[in-house]
Amino acid sequence: MNIYNISISYKTAPVEIRELLAFQKEEKKDFIKAALQKSDVRECVLITTCNRTEVYAAGGKMAADQIMQLLVERKNLNYDHVIKYYLRYQNEKAVKHLFQVICGLDSMLIGEDEILGQVKDDYQLALQAGTTDFLLNTLFRIAITCAKKVKTDTKISKTSISIGTLAANEVFRFSDKAQVKKVLIIGLSGKFGTIVMKNLYHNKSVKIMGTIRNHNIPDELVISYPEVKMIDYNKRYDTIKDADIIISATSSPHYTITSEELKKYISDKKERLFIDLAVPTDIDKNIEKLENVKLIDIDYFKQIAEVNNNLKHQEIEAAKIIIDKQVDEFYKEINFRNFIPCMNELKEVFENQSFESIMYKIRNQVTNDELKVIIQSFTKLIENK
Amino acid sequence: MNIYNISISYKTAPVEIRELLAFQKEEKKDFIKAALQKSDVRECVLITTCNRTEVYAAGGKMAADQIMQLLVERKNLNYDHVIKYYLRYQNEKAVKHLFQVICGLDSMLIGEDEILGQVKDDYQLALQAGTTDFLLNTLFRIAITCAKKVKTDTKISKTSISIGTLAANEVFRFSDKAQVKKVLIIGLSGKFGTIVMKNLYHNKSVKIMGTIRNHNIPDELVISYPEVKMIDYNKRYDTIKDADIIISATSSPHYTITSEELKKYISDKKERLFIDLAVPTDIDKNIEKLENVKLIDIDYFKQIAEVNNNLKHQEIEAAKIIIDKQVDEFYKEINFRNFIPCMNELKEVFENQSFESIMYKIRNQVTNDELKVIIQSFTKLIENK
Repeated sequence: MNIYNISISYKTAPVEIRELLAFQKEEKKDFIKAALQKSDVRECVLITTCNRTEVYAAGGKMAADQIMQLLVERKNLNYDHVIKYYLRYQNEKAVKHLFQVICGLDSMLIGEDEILGQVKDDYQLALQAGTTDFLLNTLFRIAITCAKKVKTDTKISKTSISIGTLAANEVFRFSDKAQVKKVLIIGLSGKFGTIVMKNLYHNKSVKIMGTIRNHNIPDELVISYPEVKMIDYNKRYDTIKDADIIISATSSPHYTITSEELKKYISDKKERLFIDLAVPTDIDKNIEKLENVKLIDIDYFKQIAEVNNNLKHQEIEAAKIIIDKQVDEFYKEINFRNFIPCMNELKEVFENQSFESIMYKIRNQVTNDELKVIIQSFTKLIENK
Repeated sequence: MNIYNISISYKTAPVEIRELLAFQKEEKKDFIKAALQKSDVRECVLITTCNRTEVYAAGGKMAADQIMQLLVERKNLNYDHVIKYYLRYQNEKAVKHLFQVICGLDSMLIGEDEILGQVKDDYQLALQAGTTDFLLNTLFRIAITCAKKVKTDTKISKTSISIGTLAANEVFRFSDKAQVKKVLIIGLSGKFGTIVMKNLYHNKSVKIMGTIRNHNIPDELVISYPEVKMIDYNKRYDTIKDADIIISATSSPHYTITSEELKKYISDKKERLFIDLAVPTDIDKNIEKLENVKLIDIDYFKQIAEVNNNLKHQEIEAAKIIIDKQVDEFYKEINFRNFIPCMNELKEVFENQSFESIMYKIRNQVTNDELKVIIQSFTKLIENK
């Protein structure tokens, strides 16, 4: 029995193609059950995220072809068109691919751990639908263990190299959880402004206000993030008076905040954090001279991003070592399971022949390297007696 | 305990140096016994041929240095002078070197099998002198087995690429063993003449006669090969009358045998084989037209030599495979021997714990590759029950 994987992901297919292969929950269940009706398919799991559609199947030689046919039929696709956009892996490569996917190593944002939950849910669905058996059950059980290990034993999911995320982290560090802090984002609809906002949005210790250039408010942002309070750009200094943290990330060629103007508004003793994510800079450096003002600029985050980038590469290597070990563990379980039926017969051999004569027989059958493996594992039995 | 080899051979040292390291039989015995007096030397074998002096020793870290010191002392050599001319191998490299030496792969004439007898004799000497023990006894036993296998299972020692040897083989093919054939070699002291003569000399079905240019007889040839009958070059045609096989290999610019002259002497019905090994040719091609005359020239042997050269390379590869297997066999015996003391304790483990629980323990200790080795060797036990 072979293990197959069909993978259509952001790496192989544009979003228009990936959208064609989206599945609702009930549709997924129908698909995997239909897959098991195919002559060569014995087990099937379907995984979908916004970035990928992946099928894992165990079965005979034709299993991958039959799954591909089913995909095309169910989604009314043109086979010749879709064929360009998928990868097909078999056995050890398919196994290793799942481990990399579930550990976030195949993700667009390497190391992200959302994927683990998505794979878990899709595997649970298959388990409940009864479309898995020993092979995929063992595979997914060990893959899930592996992803948890990577999350715990490496810093891969904690090492951000996104400047927006790093700026949001700085906001959290400045806040104490006891008291809600008010954050003003000048340039909310810009790239960095949006990322910072998204990172802060679900955190209850933060209240977000934002300015948008030319009142040209993109509907999406207002609709998707209703709790962000939109502010008129011209009222920014008044808002700063009320705010604890001010982030400026516009593409304006001029300062959004000058020292001269600011000092008119912040005569209170409140500590304020200013973060300047703009190039050229948005915030007049002289504000640092004002009392209770802390200013961090984009260079600071760039430095952290660089350090984290190196760290991330180390963590990826550490994750790969964990994956290799767990892939090995998977094959060990499979091989051991196949060995179990021989166990009784072998037990008889050990009962009816002297231990010495068995060892001499083994010696005569194997190479030196094999003998070393056997002797070593036997010697460990004595040590761990 | 390590295995060491010190090798001074035609590959590393000129004949003047190799001569300094020649040993008589009694001297050899003294040397290996003296070696065992050194603090780090536990076992020692000394091998000498005209092309090499090699010491194999088993012992501690200083063993090779101590052997080298002893060599220098015994032979009154200058250490700094000799140090340039020897190779030193350790453990697997030393083991492999012995196997290559004994199989003739390290010989000047690759594949020659005289070396096997020489190594055997020198090992016997050490065995009788009591300077070997388990390690070198096992090593030499398996090395000798290996050399015999290479001799039997490959054509390495039978595949000549020497034109002189190939010509001699042609002489044997033309002779039948029942009747002694007379061979005339015109140009006995030349390169090919001498090789052919040496190849034929010890064969009782052949009687050799030879001519030497200018009666300039080299003493060595006459003394070393007294049974060769020297003939005056001018009497060559008369001698041909009496001969069955005529080999001409002079460096003369003229024919040594012409058709016109030959036909005056061989009016009998006797079949004669003429072999022409000279460049330019010694024998007039027209003699082929005479009755009962067969002529083979050097191009024929060159062709065979080329074919054999290719064959020899194949046979060398075949020999290397045999060597690798036997080196493996050697290490298997060593490792197994080291394992024997654990055997009783392990036997207890197998008696006191259930076979299943032992197998699960082994599974948890090993990698998948190791598990595969163990399962495979256990499964073979059932097959060969």
